[in-house]
This record gives sequence, structure tokens and C-alpha cells, in this order.
Amino acid sequence: MFKAKVRPEVLKEVVDVVSTTVDETKITASKTGITIKAVDPAHVAMIELTLGKGGFEEYKADDVSLGVDMDKIKEVLRLAKPGDMIQIEHDEERNRLVFKVENITRKMSLVDTTGMSEPKVPNLNLPVKIVVKTDEIRQGIRASESVSDHIALVANSDGFEMVSEGDTDSVSLKLGKDLLEEIKCKEETRSLFPLDYFSSIFKTISTASVVTMHMGTDYPVKLEFSIANEKGEVTYLLAPRIESE
Amino acid sequence: MFKAKVRPEVLKEVVDVVSTTVDETKITASKTGITIKAVDPAHVAMIELTLGKGGFEEYKADDVSLGVDMDKIKEVLRLAKPGDMIQIEHDEERNRLVFKVENITRKMSLVDTTGMSEPKVPNLNLPVKIVVKTDEIRQGIRASESVSDHIALVANSDGFEMVSEGDTDSVSLKLGKDLLEEIKCKEETRSLFPLDYFSSIFKTISTASVVTMHMGTDYPVKLEFSIANEKGEVTYLLAPRIESE
Amino acid sequence: MFKAKVRPEVLKEVVDVVSTTVDETKITASKTGITIKAVDPAHVAMIELTLGKGGFEEYKADDVSLGVDMDKIKEVLRLAKPGDMIQIEHDEERNRLVFKVENITRKMSLVDTTGMSEPKVPNLNLPVKIVVKTDEIRQGIRASESVSDHIALVANSDGFEMVSEGDTDSVSLKLGKDLLEEIKCKEETRSLFPLDYFSSIFKTISTASVVTMHMGTDYPVKLEFSIANEKGEVTYLLAPRIESE
Repeated sequence: MFKAKVRPEVLKEVVDVVSTTVDETKITASKTGITIKAVDPAHVAMIELTLGKGGFEEYKADDVSLGVDMDKIKEVLRLAKPGDMIQIEHDEERNRLVFKVENITRKMSLVDTTGMSEPKVPNLNLPVKIVVKTDEIRQGIRASESVSDHIALVANSDGFEMVSEGDTDSVSLKLGKDLLEEIKCKEETRSLFPLDYFSSIFKTISTASVVTMHMGTDYPVKLEFSIANEKGEVTYLLAPRIESE
Repeated sequence: MFKAKVRPEVLKEVVDVVSTTVDETKITASKTGITIKAVDPAHVAMIELTLGKGGFEEYKADDVSLGVDMDKIKEVLRLAKPGDMIQIEHDEERNRLVFKVENITRKMSLVDTTGMSEPKVPNLNLPVKIVVKTDEIRQGIRASESVSDHIALVANSDGFEMVSEGDTDSVSLKLGKDLLEEIKCKEETRSLFPLDYFSSIFKTISTASVVTMHMGTDYPVKLEFSIANEKGEVTYLLAPRIESE
Repeated sequence: MFKAKVRPEVLKEVVDVVSTTVDETKITASKTGITIKAVDPAHVAMIELTLGKGGFEEYKADDVSLGVDMDKIKEVLRLAKPGDMIQIEHDEERNRLVFKVENITRKMSLVDTTGMSEPKVPNLNLPVKIVVKTDEIRQGIRASESVSDHIALVANSDGFEMVSEGDTDSVSLKLGKDLLEEIKCKEETRSLFPLDYFSSIFKTISTASVVTMHMGTDYPVKLEFSIANEKGEVTYLLAPRIESE
């Protein structure tokens, strides 16, 4: 059983975040809310998203798994005008989701979840923690895009730096301690990441003004940010590239 | 003889509506106004547009037929700034139209109308009449576009419904009697139409907030709406698709 | 030595104007400001741009030549938010430019200027002078674009006219004396120009509301306009096309 009413902007946040990683996903619903775990096809990024009951206007569910196609949800979102509500109900008999937006009813067949893996978020010991404004990171991404396909994240006791190095040019964004919300860093760490992955996740962060980054040299970076005005939470893990020197 | 002055937004409405059906058309001008009748190349849609003298700022014409290319009129429209007037005069000697917009003069050769047919609007006995807000229909079109290339228009004593059915998904917009401006329907009728045609004519409706639809099961739908703030009138006939069951 | 601070909108004007003609250029800096001279690869257009010290917020330079790629400067411009300043410094040791925008540092290798010619602006005796609002010319360009790839500039004692003639259609913009800021013209002159060149330079004129045009029959047209709120000056020479009659 799954029946919910949700504001379009909340559903949009969920769909945008998940779409960075997979086209189709399994939504696991329980009494307390929904969870989505997914790994991208190249096994470079992993996402874990939870949205509590409180992120919905109405919510009622027993334990159920729903295989959904993100693009179809985006189609439904395009039908909602500001102020509209989206009603979602699981039609168990026919195994489909029924969406209602005002006078419109959209019946959507579910995707088979048999082949979908349930990724386990690894337990990583990442020594550095930084809390930073998302807008600052976005500015660094914009600067890097014209120079390289990779971005190095560097932290030391002075602050945080994003560095991109191309064949002839280089660019860096330096954020001193005073420009960070928080920094815990005992020794310098540096890791290289694929810029397109890093960029696409930051494009989807909408209601969170800050993001928490956990890092370690040549370790994955772990991003944490809230969605739906802190009614939900996302953890995003991105694998590093080996830096050739 | 043909000489007129017209506001760009009125000329734009005429051109947009006619462009849904043909690229070139014959404009028949008389003392009382202009008429355009056209059938699309696939013979699926037919249009009849009239714009009375009152739709123009100035108007003077004897009976004359002018073959015009819609894209060229669009080019002239792009030159008009808000508040500008467009002057049009038929240069009979050289068989061309002369457009003036502020300091710009555009001389446009006419298209040969010899081969252009003068379609006759068939006399159809359509039992159902519905008057509905154009915005409601547009919302139904938007919902259908992601599901199918066809749209079924259904009317019964309860109201009006637009239904699209794809292989796995379906979508419907239901408008009860209270959401319609008017409904005359004794028995249920249902017809299937190509969505692209239906969509493109609704995209061009600009000053009319309601449209009148005449329908009958597996009969063409006949749409009527005003243009130029009720100074002109359009009748649009769209042939049904045979529904395979 | 070259070190300057400049508002992004000023740097943008310089880059936009120069980009109409070349992708890479030599910037010649001196104590009093910068100069750029360039000819387009087809040798149809020539540009000379000067921006005085006063166009910069801070400026300090010895005689130096800097080979720069316009696209890279555009990338830097995209990083500047309204109100930001762009700092530029020549790193002589590594022969590169270092740009700073807020917390971002972009290091840009210079382009080799060895092969770049230093065009000499020819001394032309052009009998007609017209000063005209750039917006009027832009309107004439817009009208011409749908009719022909060429534009004729015509001046006589009555005023100025832009004429485009296609196979079937023609368009003209006529500006009588009263619509011109100034006109000096003893006998009628007429020259034909490639519309794309003429259009692209007018698209880049931003802070100048008027442009001065010097003309002679079948001679190049010489355009003069200011940049950076009259802190800089551009001269643009465009070769005529031979008119076939």
C-alpha cells in the first residue's frame, strides 16, 4: 500500500537528484517515508536518498518497493502549475502508479525491480570534513569547465581549494577558513574527480544552501545535503580518479 | 484594389492560424473583409478564416485574390515594434504586395494562385456541442503528449474527457459539466484524432479564451473560435482516425 | 609589465568587438592604454580598437605585446558576477596572463604573436559622412536578413537608405535628414556590402548609441563608434562587393 500527496517542487528535487545517477530506480516505501539507493551504470557514483513522511502533505504506506522511470515522473511534473498538489497511489492489482494533478489522471506502469541491485553504502573513514556554501562550489565548477574534465579537491589547515589543470591553462578557487561554514582538517588531502559527475550533482541541489563534504587523499568524496527543506537527506559518494604525475 | 492598415498582433493571429495548415494561401478580399480557406496537404484538416473590415485600422478593397507566402509575412511581423502599424497595399501593375512598417518598405512578390483549390466546408450534422476554456484543452494536450500520438475526445451527459492511451501508460483529463461553459450532449460520442494537428491549432489561439467544439462519434471535430478580439472568426475541421480495437 | 583592473562589461565590449574579426589577436599595451589592430582571415574587414587607461579601474603598463585567445577571455567573463572586478597581470617569467575574479584565479598561456600581422589602416578619401543611431541601422539589418545576403548603403542629399534586393522581393529602410544625427553628402554614393559582416559588427556595439559612417561609391565603409562609455574608440573598415548590373 502506498498513497501520498506531495508538492511538485519536493517531488522535483527527488527526481532531479536521482536522475544524476540512474534513469530507473527502486523506491522503497515504509511507514516512515521513502528511501532510494542507486549506483550509476559506470559504478563511479552512488546515491542514497531518504524523504521522511514529513516531506509529504499526506502519506500512508506499508512496506513496498516501486520500480519507477524518472523521465515519466518528470512528465507528470510538467503538468503541475504552481500551487497544485500531486496525488500518487499504488494500484496493486495492476501494478501501476496512478498520479492525479487537478483534473488530470496519469496511469503509469511500474518498472520491474528484479534486476535492480540494492547497493550498500560503504563504511569509509574520511578524515576531512568541510561545510561550504553550494554557490561557492558551483562557481568553482563553472571556472573549471573551460579548463579540464577533472577537478582536484584540496583541503589543508588554511582552507579548501578546487583546482583544474589543462594542458596550457589552469584555474583554482580558493576558499579560506573564513569563507567556509566549518572545516576539520589535520593534514592536507587531495583527490581528483570527474568534473561532469561533480557538476551534475551540484546542479540538482536546490533547497540546501550548504553541503557537507567528507574527504581523504585518493578516497571517494562523500557529499551530504538536505532536500525538501530539511525533510529529506541525500548522501552522494563519488569515486576518485587516479592522478597521473 | 487592396489597401489596409493593421496592428501587428492581428496580422500575427491570422498568419499563425493559417500556418498550421498551409505554407502558402489565397487571401480573398472583398469590401467587407478578408477570407482564407485552406486544406492541409494530407487532407486531414481544413480551415476557414474570416477577418472583417473592423479588424483593420484602415481597410479599402475591391474583390481581389492575393496569393501569399506565410513565412514572408512572418518576416514582416518581426520588424514591427509594439505600437507600430503595418500598412499593406496591392501594387496591381507589378502584382506584388508592398508592406510598410515605420521607415521600412518591403516589396513582396505574390504567389501564383492558379493551382490553389478553393475547398468547400462540408455540411456535417454533429450532435454534440461543447464550449470550453482553451487553457483547459491545452493542459489536456500537454498531458497527452508524453503518452501517445493520438487523443480521443469523449463527451457524455456528465461532461467532456480527453484520453490518450499508450502501450503501458494512459492519461486523461476530465472536465465535469461545472468546468464547461456549455454542453449539449444526448448520447456518448467518442472520436480519435492525431495529437499533433489538434495541438498545433490550439497553440495558435491567442485572443479567444473559449473554443466551441462540435463532435459526433467517428466524425470530424469542428472547432470554432474568434480572432482579433472577436473581429474575426475561425472554423477548423479535423478528420478522425479510425480507432482499432 | 602589464597589470590592470577592469570592469567585466568593459572587457566584454572589447572582446565582443574584436571577436567579429579574429579569434586570436595581439594586444599592444603602453603607458597610456591598449590598442588592437586586426584583419579578418578573408581580408574583408579591418578593425582598430583603442582603450585608454581611463577605461580601466587600475592600469599600469610598459610597452608590451600580448597574444590572446578571445574565447578564453570570454570564459573568464562568464565567471564575473555583476559588480565583480577582473584583475589581470602579465606573468613575464612564464609568459602567461593571470586573471583574478573574486576567489578564482585563472592562469592563461599566451598565444605566439610572431606570425600575426600588424595591419596598416589605409588612408581613404571618403566624401560622405553620416552620423546615425545604431538602433536604426539594426532595424534595417533585421529587415534585410530575410531578403538577401548583401546590403547596399546609399546616401544622397535627402538622407540615407539601406537597400536589400532578392530574386523576388526587396526591402529598404529610408532615413530622411531629420532622422539622422548628421549628414555631409554632396553627390549620391552607393556601395554594396556583405550583410553578415555588417550585421555582426553592429551586434557588438553596446554603449554607443550613435555610429559615424564614412562612405564613397564602391569604396569601403568606415565605421567609427565609441566603447566603454567613450573611454575607447573603434574604427571598422569593411570592403565593398562589386555590384553586378
